[in-house]
Amino acid sequence: MTVTIIGIGLIGGSLGITLKENGFATRVIGVDASEENLHKATRRRLIDEEMSLAEGVAVADVIVLATPVDVMRKLLPEILDRISDKQTVIDVGSTKEQLLDEVVNHPNRKRYVACHPMAGTEFSGPEAALPRLFENKVCVIVDAEDSADNALEVARRLFRSAGMNFSRLDRKAHDLHCAYVSHISHIASFALALTVLEKERDEQRIFDLASSGFSSTVRLAKSSADMWIPIFRQNRDHVLDVLDEHIEQLSKFRTQLIKRDFDGFYERIERANEISKILK
Amino acid sequence: MTVTIIGIGLIGGSLGITLKENGFATRVIGVDASEENLHKATRRRLIDEEMSLAEGVAVADVIVLATPVDVMRKLLPEILDRISDKQTVIDVGSTKEQLLDEVVNHPNRKRYVACHPMAGTEFSGPEAALPRLFENKVCVIVDAEDSADNALEVARRLFRSAGMNFSRLDRKAHDLHCAYVSHISHIASFALALTVLEKERDEQRIFDLASSGFSSTVRLAKSSADMWIPIFRQNRDHVLDVLDEHIEQLSKFRTQLIKRDFDGFYERIERANEISKILK
Repeated sequence: MTVTIIGIGLIGGSLGITLKENGFATRVIGVDASEENLHKATRRRLIDEEMSLAEGVAVADVIVLATPVDVMRKLLPEILDRISDKQTVIDVGSTKEQLLDEVVNHPNRKRYVACHPMAGTEFSGPEAALPRLFENKVCVIVDAEDSADNALEVARRLFRSAGMNFSRLDRKAHDLHCAYVSHISHIASFALALTVLEKERDEQRIFDLASSGFSSTVRLAKSSADMWIPIFRQNRDHVLDVLDEHIEQLSKFRTQLIKRDFDGFYERIERANEISKILK
Repeated sequence: MTVTIIGIGLIGGSLGITLKENGFATRVIGVDASEENLHKATRRRLIDEEMSLAEGVAVADVIVLATPVDVMRKLLPEILDRISDKQTVIDVGSTKEQLLDEVVNHPNRKRYVACHPMAGTEFSGPEAALPRLFENKVCVIVDAEDSADNALEVARRLFRSAGMNFSRLDRKAHDLHCAYVSHISHIASFALALTVLEKERDEQRIFDLASSGFSSTVRLAKSSADMWIPIFRQNRDHVLDVLDEHIEQLSKFRTQLIKRDFDGFYERIERANEISKILK
């Protein structure tokens, strides 16, 4: 199969190298707004060839859209305009409602499968690509009933070849659950980085003391603004809802410290510990 | 050297196995309030022998106090009462001001070295002990000028044998910096776990979506209340100070979302990204 990947960053680049290595793709074509990114991807052998969007879409069996989510809203309808019913389009974006509303009435909607492979790191760009990024992770297929069966089958084979398992959600539920589990973690981590940078002016001190857990909690604060601002923009209402809850939870700890209610604090830590039943 | 470790949990147990394996200790004696913990530690070969506190202190060249910090305040003066000037006492606690105030006028103060090896995991108990936990981490020596030179030398050799580097702070600065870098990370993580458990009632959903960063940010939320409540109690004022800043940083993100000020949000993410200059 010829796979064209549009947006050769962490996810697009990782998919390129993965699909080539496991034999799903006989030919991986890269398309990117940045020539520098494309050349980097070629040098790192994440892709076989560089093409323009029009060329890349024309020759592909499968087109994977892996740009930031604001760019997806613009490109997805244009790509669907260009394809035949032998081609399949997949996106890998972190928000779905606005994107899917964009193409709900498109005549080629059935050739498109909305996917969210739940995998990533705090790094971005083709230099961050990893061949085993997707292994044993979950790919959420969104509004699957709006895709043709053979398009769904292509998407499933693609992500299964990368070692993924599957889950299904409709687009509203997807965005809600991602705000609740994924997007809030990023905001919490950005805020923690800002807190520590604000209070602790001594960088050597941060470095020395960071092994006590800070580095893991703050890891996501290295994430790219170019990727995350479009996500927060598109998922603003759900993110606000869970952010309110998070500030409320922190405020309760604050009140308990002020009142020296350490028994109440203890109980809430024990409740927080329950997360280890879900995440081993 | 005979090393007696009081409190065979994650840190005490890891020190036991490390010091035995690297040859610093010829004999590791374990003391613990829980007989079950002690037996586990023996079965896992973290310690060579089990003793009572009085016996363990009597036979040791070096005594390492590795209990929760509230228990340390009680035990440290009792241990200093019992030792000769050929013995060295070390603690590994996460807060120092109240502990050091407790023994400031003790006639054997100079035999004691206050240490904080900045290493750990979210797990606790002897089953969590790891032989290479301390490698390439920083050990903070607190109020070093109050310890005898030969006691300091024993402490340094002990932690150097475990692969640690050193830093020095006075007790007030230690507690402040630990609140700013370490303790706040734990509260942020506990609060994030509670947020997600509150909003996301579907446990399978949490599991499916967690690979997108949540699991790393929430890792510390598995930490033990028995260890952390005494730390928060002893370091309450500094923790409150940095917690206020953290709630403020989150509230700014909230305001920016409400106003749809995504340019401002973008700038603050870029500022948060600066943490990657400090923590690679």
